[in-house]
Amino acid sequence: MEVNLRLDRNMRIIGTNRLGLETVFDTSPEVGGEHTAPSPMETLLMAMGACTFMDVISILRKKRKTVTGMNIKITAERTSEHPKVYKKAHLIYELISPDAQMEDLNRSIELSQTKYCGASAMFKLAGCEVTWEAVLKRPEE
Amino acid sequence: MEVNLRLDRNMRIIGTNRLGLETVFDTSPEVGGEHTAPSPMETLLMAMGACTFMDVISILRKKRKTVTGMNIKITAERTSEHPKVYKKAHLIYELISPDAQMEDLNRSIELSQTKYCGASAMFKLAGCEVTWEAVLKRPEE
Repeated sequence: MEVNLRLDRNMRIIGTNRLGLETVFDTSPEVGGEHTAPSPMETLLMAMGACTFMDVISILRKKRKTVTGMNIKITAERTSEHPKVYKKAHLIYELISPDAQMEDLNRSIELSQTKYCGASAMFKLAGCEVTWEAVLKRPEE
Repeated sequence: MEVNLRLDRNMRIIGTNRLGLETVFDTSPEVGGEHTAPSPMETLLMAMGACTFMDVISILRKKRKTVTGMNIKITAERTSEHPKVYKKAHLIYELISPDAQMEDLNRSIELSQTKYCGASAMFKLAGCEVTWEAVLKRPEE
């Protein structure tokens, strides 16, 4: 895999993948940024969440369950000393589906967290305590 | 820190930070995506690069050096078995500056890689071998 990053202006950085698809990074004005995009550490956390998110959708769809909507909220803590790595991350997976059961959702998340999600695995290998809970809603709620 | 992720359509996911700033994730059509944005694992790698990128710019500017341009190219390898974590990442930092010396650039990268960059530290703690090289160019080149 190969990615490229280039300085746009101030602290704003544009990342591109092999297809030229872009992700923008920025930071707060206190450290020279313009707050036009999430920071690298926020994006690292989002990327971990998006990785397990795609696993769960993919597994649920393979189980022929309908995904009407889904979101993940992540709260995380970093160490106070440099390098400020993530020490805790808690994910709340919320699925809106007319036909999936709680067991389908829990099992999909477990499969992602224990087997498939490379980003979550890296967080755990790096010493971050990754915990999660699941919420299932029906479309009419 | 808190971030949120929501399903947009198919496999397209929109992440937001506390200010509502967005990062979009997508994946390839073979796995249900539309390739409208980098994948979660590509973005994880970019976020690591953007983290050390900002450190290096910040340190160079504190040394009163002019950053005319900068880019980082990252090549990486993942394990072949699930979970597919990064096992190697090589960063090529290229700085364009009229007044920075090679020593300034090398020292800035070293400081980021050994002390400040939380994302690089997490990659290393997770068992990824992170290596780097530096290239310095003058604006006229």
